Amino acid sequence: MRTETLRVRGMSCSHCVQSVEGALKKIGAEGKVDLASGSVQVRYDETKVSLEAIKSAIEEQGYEVQ
Amino acid sequence: MRTETLRVRGMSCSHCVQSVEGALKKIGAEGKVDLASGSVQVRYDETKVSLEAIKSAIEEQGYEVQ
Repeated sequence: MRTETLRVRGMSCSHCVQSVEGALKKIGAEGKVDLASGSVQVRYDETKVSLEAIKSAIEEQGYEVQ
Repeated sequence: MRTETLRVRGMSCSHCVQSVEGALKKIGAEGKVDLASGSVQVRYDETKVSLEAIKSAIEEQGYEVQ
């Protein structure tokens, strides 16, 4: 398992938290959004999910990964 | 039909727009959120829906009507 912290722009409320964390769950990663710092801590098995797939999943929800 | 503009605190993103406008639709009112000004313009038939019911519907979504 690997843990990365990504800076993500545009997350502003609890709905955003749900959409980001939900999208990560769908691809088999575990995300924890921190609205105050605008970041997402992602825990994932790098043999199954790539960091690129994680970034895409977040971007598809309408947020910008920095 | 009557139109009122309410100041609503806490709406920050497109999900908030959807939840407020959706909640108003459910009670038979028509809402248009303006995020920039933090307001909701509501159009409703006052013989069918009360302003109190409209305020409650918004507050139930987690926002504060000012």
